[in-house]
Amino acid sequence: MTPSDLARRIDHTILKPEALPPEVHKVVTEAIEYAFASVCVAPAWVGKVSAMLKGTPVACCTVVGFPNGTSKPTLKAIEASSAIKDGATEVDVVAFLPFLINHDVDAAKAELMEVVRAARATRSDVVIKVIVESAALLKAGGEKGERALATACQAVRQSGCDFIKTSTGFHPAGGASVEAVRLMKKYGEGLLVKASGGIRDLATAQAMIEAGADRLGLSASVAIVEELKQGGTKAPQPTGGY
Amino acid sequence: MTPSDLARRIDHTILKPEALPPEVHKVVTEAIEYAFASVCVAPAWVGKVSAMLKGTPVACCTVVGFPNGTSKPTLKAIEASSAIKDGATEVDVVAFLPFLINHDVDAAKAELMEVVRAARATRSDVVIKVIVESAALLKAGGEKGERALATACQAVRQSGCDFIKTSTGFHPAGGASVEAVRLMKKYGEGLLVKASGGIRDLATAQAMIEAGADRLGLSASVAIVEELKQGGTKAPQPTGGY
Repeated sequence: MTPSDLARRIDHTILKPEALPPEVHKVVTEAIEYAFASVCVAPAWVGKVSAMLKGTPVACCTVVGFPNGTSKPTLKAIEASSAIKDGATEVDVVAFLPFLINHDVDAAKAELMEVVRAARATRSDVVIKVIVESAALLKAGGEKGERALATACQAVRQSGCDFIKTSTGFHPAGGASVEAVRLMKKYGEGLLVKASGGIRDLATAQAMIEAGADRLGLSASVAIVEELKQGGTKAPQPTGGY
Repeated sequence: MTPSDLARRIDHTILKPEALPPEVHKVVTEAIEYAFASVCVAPAWVGKVSAMLKGTPVACCTVVGFPNGTSKPTLKAIEASSAIKDGATEVDVVAFLPFLINHDVDAAKAELMEVVRAARATRSDVVIKVIVESAALLKAGGEKGERALATACQAVRQSGCDFIKTSTGFHPAGGASVEAVRLMKKYGEGLLVKASGGIRDLATAQAMIEAGADRLGLSASVAIVEELKQGGTKAPQPTGGY
């Protein structure tokens, strides 16, 4: 994989609540310089960031119901639609976890469909990713955890979303894991997979791609691409919070 | 302080994203039994919880823009209004932290005013608390951190909100501290103060009240009230995430 192959799989991400304008500005500048897939920012930043990205090939990605997924489906739909009007072309929506833990595909699907309808009515080619907090689902352990993740894949697929995404990076149960990505490829036929949350070095990023990740959500994007340019071979580090 | 004095200062809180219906149900039942001030749940739960609380003296509290505070002011306004229509009588809104860190009272106030107008138009006597993530603000350190917290107090006061609240319980910088509560009493004249985030024992709860907290946001509410009933005297524990 060349550095530019890697770069085009990266959503260059800044979601910490205390991010200040110069930090967000720097992330946007880096994304243009490295030709990352997108810049991923909170809804409050979308207007400014999408204006900065205008005329570049870098997409503006945002998050909805983030990070807990406990706002109402209607609110998630309004938030998605509003962010798209502000210039977002990709939205990463956090699913309501109790539906997944309880293996309630119908309820999970109904929630996502409400967001999908509003989002696609606003912009038909918007890319929709669904964050299912895989570490929290798998924490249930064994067959039960795997079944929660299978439920998530089914709901995401049936609601016509594009990606299933591992993690917010904010949940204490942790971020992306190779196991979660593998299970998403197993149960999410036809879905693209985004691995995110605690991926801080090249070896971990490469492990996620080898497991099947199509997109990576990273804050350490520049360091990781630079590590590849220098032929880095450090061992993977444990993933964690943001 | 009697156990019932303590209980009436407590917002009995369950905000973890993976909370399942039986856990939420248990929290509501406990709140009624112990006569806590309110049950605090995410917006997705407000309809069910407020129905369960009908006819009791326990209020239904919810959170808005939670926990990052990075949704747009308009969305926070819609979310508050929607939750009040669902039955919430208290809303805890997370402020956009960059305004506070940059000491921009006008921008912080404008955001809060948008939420206040929408919330009070829906229910004139709604109680509005503003979460300012004091540990993150104070992390800047010394005079700069204190000035961010003073900015927060000024914006919350001028926008006509009822409470200033320390923490979401989800920020890695930590939860409530005695220092934060003291500074809120110093700079937030006329405001009520809610201490929340990582308060897990009676000694810590009492320290917050002694520092000036009028309300406490707790998950360990039952254990703490029981500790008081048994005349507990354990040393305060360090506060942390949820």
